[in-house]
Amino acid sequence: MDVLIEQVLMKLREPLHDMESISQWKMQMFTFIDRIAELKVSSTNSGSSENISLDPVDWSAARHIAHEMLDASLNFIQTIRDRPIWRPVPEDVRTILEDAPVPERSRSLADVCNDILTYVLPYPRGNIHPRYWGWVKTEGTVGGVLADMITSTINPNSAGGQFYSGYYVERAVIDWMRQLFGFPRMKNAGVLTTGTSMATIMSLAAARQRAIKNVREDGLVNGPQLMAYASTEAHGCLEKALQLLGLGSKALHLISIDDDFRIKTDQLKIAIQNDRAKGLIPFCIIGNAGTVNTGAFDDLVELSTIARTENVWLHVDGAFGSSVILDPQRRHLVAGLDQADSLAFDFHKWFHCPYEAGCILVRHGLDLQSTFSMEQSILGIVRKDSINDALPFTQLTPDLSRSCRALKVWFTLQEHGTLKIGKKIADNCDQTQYFLSLLEKSKHTIDIIRPVTLNIINFRFEPVELDTTNHELIDNLNIRLANDVQFSGIAYPSTSCIRNRSYIRVCIVSHRSTHEDVDIFVETLLKLYEIRLAKSQQTN
Amino acid sequence: MDVLIEQVLMKLREPLHDMESISQWKMQMFTFIDRIAELKVSSTNSGSSENISLDPVDWSAARHIAHEMLDASLNFIQTIRDRPIWRPVPEDVRTILEDAPVPERSRSLADVCNDILTYVLPYPRGNIHPRYWGWVKTEGTVGGVLADMITSTINPNSAGGQFYSGYYVERAVIDWMRQLFGFPRMKNAGVLTTGTSMATIMSLAAARQRAIKNVREDGLVNGPQLMAYASTEAHGCLEKALQLLGLGSKALHLISIDDDFRIKTDQLKIAIQNDRAKGLIPFCIIGNAGTVNTGAFDDLVELSTIARTENVWLHVDGAFGSSVILDPQRRHLVAGLDQADSLAFDFHKWFHCPYEAGCILVRHGLDLQSTFSMEQSILGIVRKDSINDALPFTQLTPDLSRSCRALKVWFTLQEHGTLKIGKKIADNCDQTQYFLSLLEKSKHTIDIIRPVTLNIINFRFEPVELDTTNHELIDNLNIRLANDVQFSGIAYPSTSCIRNRSYIRVCIVSHRSTHEDVDIFVETLLKLYEIRLAKSQQTN
Repeated sequence: MDVLIEQVLMKLREPLHDMESISQWKMQMFTFIDRIAELKVSSTNSGSSENISLDPVDWSAARHIAHEMLDASLNFIQTIRDRPIWRPVPEDVRTILEDAPVPERSRSLADVCNDILTYVLPYPRGNIHPRYWGWVKTEGTVGGVLADMITSTINPNSAGGQFYSGYYVERAVIDWMRQLFGFPRMKNAGVLTTGTSMATIMSLAAARQRAIKNVREDGLVNGPQLMAYASTEAHGCLEKALQLLGLGSKALHLISIDDDFRIKTDQLKIAIQNDRAKGLIPFCIIGNAGTVNTGAFDDLVELSTIARTENVWLHVDGAFGSSVILDPQRRHLVAGLDQADSLAFDFHKWFHCPYEAGCILVRHGLDLQSTFSMEQSILGIVRKDSINDALPFTQLTPDLSRSCRALKVWFTLQEHGTLKIGKKIADNCDQTQYFLSLLEKSKHTIDIIRPVTLNIINFRFEPVELDTTNHELIDNLNIRLANDVQFSGIAYPSTSCIRNRSYIRVCIVSHRSTHEDVDIFVETLLKLYEIRLAKSQQTN
Repeated sequence: MDVLIEQVLMKLREPLHDMESISQWKMQMFTFIDRIAELKVSSTNSGSSENISLDPVDWSAARHIAHEMLDASLNFIQTIRDRPIWRPVPEDVRTILEDAPVPERSRSLADVCNDILTYVLPYPRGNIHPRYWGWVKTEGTVGGVLADMITSTINPNSAGGQFYSGYYVERAVIDWMRQLFGFPRMKNAGVLTTGTSMATIMSLAAARQRAIKNVREDGLVNGPQLMAYASTEAHGCLEKALQLLGLGSKALHLISIDDDFRIKTDQLKIAIQNDRAKGLIPFCIIGNAGTVNTGAFDDLVELSTIARTENVWLHVDGAFGSSVILDPQRRHLVAGLDQADSLAFDFHKWFHCPYEAGCILVRHGLDLQSTFSMEQSILGIVRKDSINDALPFTQLTPDLSRSCRALKVWFTLQEHGTLKIGKKIADNCDQTQYFLSLLEKSKHTIDIIRPVTLNIINFRFEPVELDTTNHELIDNLNIRLANDVQFSGIAYPSTSCIRNRSYIRVCIVSHRSTHEDVDIFVETLLKLYEIRLAKSQQTN
């Protein structure tokens, strides 16, 4: 104990400089005080150990620490612009985290919190920064953090039925989405998921269920070869879903695209006819509402007509793009979506909710039930609560343990409203056009993928100083440049592969992004380009 | 504005009685102040709207509110014993939550937080209470809440690779579990999931992959009829998994159990031989480490021998029961588990982490990769980061959007350590034996399912006053009694169906539970039993 008290005295004399070090200092002090308190307690208390739960022994100390952690969280968000987007995890931190021995003994709450502040929080993925424009990763909100905190407090299993508030929160969110997307209003026909990947698996499972009535009992062996159709721009999660469902990659018939990266619907029709002629059974068309590469929208009106004519399921992958329904200027892009049999999208993308929050909506009330209800399969009946069509969520999903991820979605929508969220989508699209205009103004030769419909821009430098017929050379230059920008900590693009060439890809989804961020991004990009080009010329 | 100020004045004069109403009152005051501030701002500010992110306009007010919410959260946990376990959602609250119109306009943070305190927090599922002993639902910890708060702050997509701290946190958790369960230490052979259901789907997908090498490309049509084996006590998620994977319920061969609810391994061997003789292909044996009904453990040593001999995959469903590895007295129950090809279990059960946190471990390093890696399928290669075998998690799971649920697990293990968590398991088992002893001492005729191995006890009252040969009558009596107890708000059992009879089922998993809770539970039960019995006698 004396050693500890000595350490406290030393710590008390330590100079402090900034906000970050003050929270760390406080937390270290708490750790000491916690340890001293524990020693004091253990020297006096020798009662029954059964009564030692995992709750704090000293609630008032725990409250202190919890409030410090909340401040660390809010500071982290508030000062996000003051820090680099990310920084590599140093090798010693990696070792401390990854190579730690199995923790056998208890440590104080403060001690573990201190670890979080020292080893975890300083090395984030980076996507809450306003200039993280890689892939489609958003940033969340303060409200989202509070909602998640409350969810973990109530800690419900949202697999069951109506006897708690979170059940209705999830039903409300689903109902709102049905109204937004123009789906008929009904209960038990939508549910929150980890993300679009899982919602896609569920959608295709429902489509499979409609195509093969006895698939749950009999499986696919000896069944017909089902076929799904999507454009070559479709997201990889589709193929993954078909594989998981036992349909195999070969069940995915990829259809070529037009110059605007949209599925060629005449090719689609021919493909369906040819496949039928071969004895294959078309069961699902997948339409893109915002492709991952370029943000292209398939013609969903035309796809829904084909789906109806061919009597196959229409699934729409609207992971982030379907959110344009909130933006009056761009709503027309998803015309026809209201005719889909299923829609998969994410709240943790353009709705700005924290991970994870995806969603599946099915058009017809019974499609999730008939695919996932356990009673359906075992007893031949679907259990229904008498009031209000209140089916437990276990009957609608593969998951039997579920948190209430609806609360953060409900919170975000309640706090910000669909109008403001829609406005932020328009802002991101405007920022992307501004990005485009800066690239166009540049003196360099830059190949830009067009059209730039939404919030995504793909471009590659094709320097006259290099042999631009050497595609590998130019690919490498651009991939390395993207890497340089990522490592700058100032801006963060990702890369894409379009028409067999590598591009730098920027996708603006942050509610924090501004035109000034575009200026900073492009300035950083051009500066690093010149350095990278000079290097390329040297090595050539 | 004047109306608002008038309302504030009235509110200021309101009398207050308890902690709960104080937080509500504060939050209402904040709401008023927020609205007034907004009015003040909007009357002066007419600048560019692009700069209005979804971040708080007034950070200091937002901090106030956030700290109030944290206090509400901590109060909720600290005073859990002072409230009923749950209460039904009143119809007007249900309407407010479920029938709310799509939120178009923004509301203040305080306003939405106030809704949470008024409509959400008072109507929890109930499982954080020390006498919620229905199903297997635990309660979480203060540390778990803080960890989730920090996770939502960093808001990572943990689908990717090594460039952030949370990646190593998840790798550490997986590594600790491999050590605990005696799996060979290797990277990329485990991952966190939403729960055991998803981990089961993934495990059986990996088993299917080993049985049919080209299943990802070619699917199951025209393939062999695979067969999985489990006891009749196996959890329903198994059948759901086989259905999703396209193998169908008929791929599940249920094997009968002995008097201790353990799979009859001689029957299993015969079933495998018979199925092979019919041309079916056995591909997976599922062993139970803690069945959901009675907490029975299959003989995993014997199962692993059979699996090796028959060259089929051994999957262990250890949803909650496998956690006994932490309890030296009961560790022997999972002997043989270290020979499994896959293990699925939950951290949100006996590890006391908040929902959702499940886990899959596979024995062999490549099994997840070969099942889920996208490059594997598309390019025929698996991308590998050069350092440290750091595969991105997307290559190991069906999910492409993933939160860092590892942080709460890491936090819980770091804070409490495996020894204390093991001790709490022993405590729950002791409490269950104490529960048993109280039932045995009761003057009533009670049929108790034996053995009571773990933390689960199933019992039914068989009153001499009623016709006990009328099974439906006795079933109903016990189901209604369980319902009475649930609605008392004092104790919370669930029910089970064992040997075609209805039982009341108690499963003690809370770190907060004590022997005194058992006293209160049994006392409530017996009191309500006498009332229910009197009612039954009247209606007879």
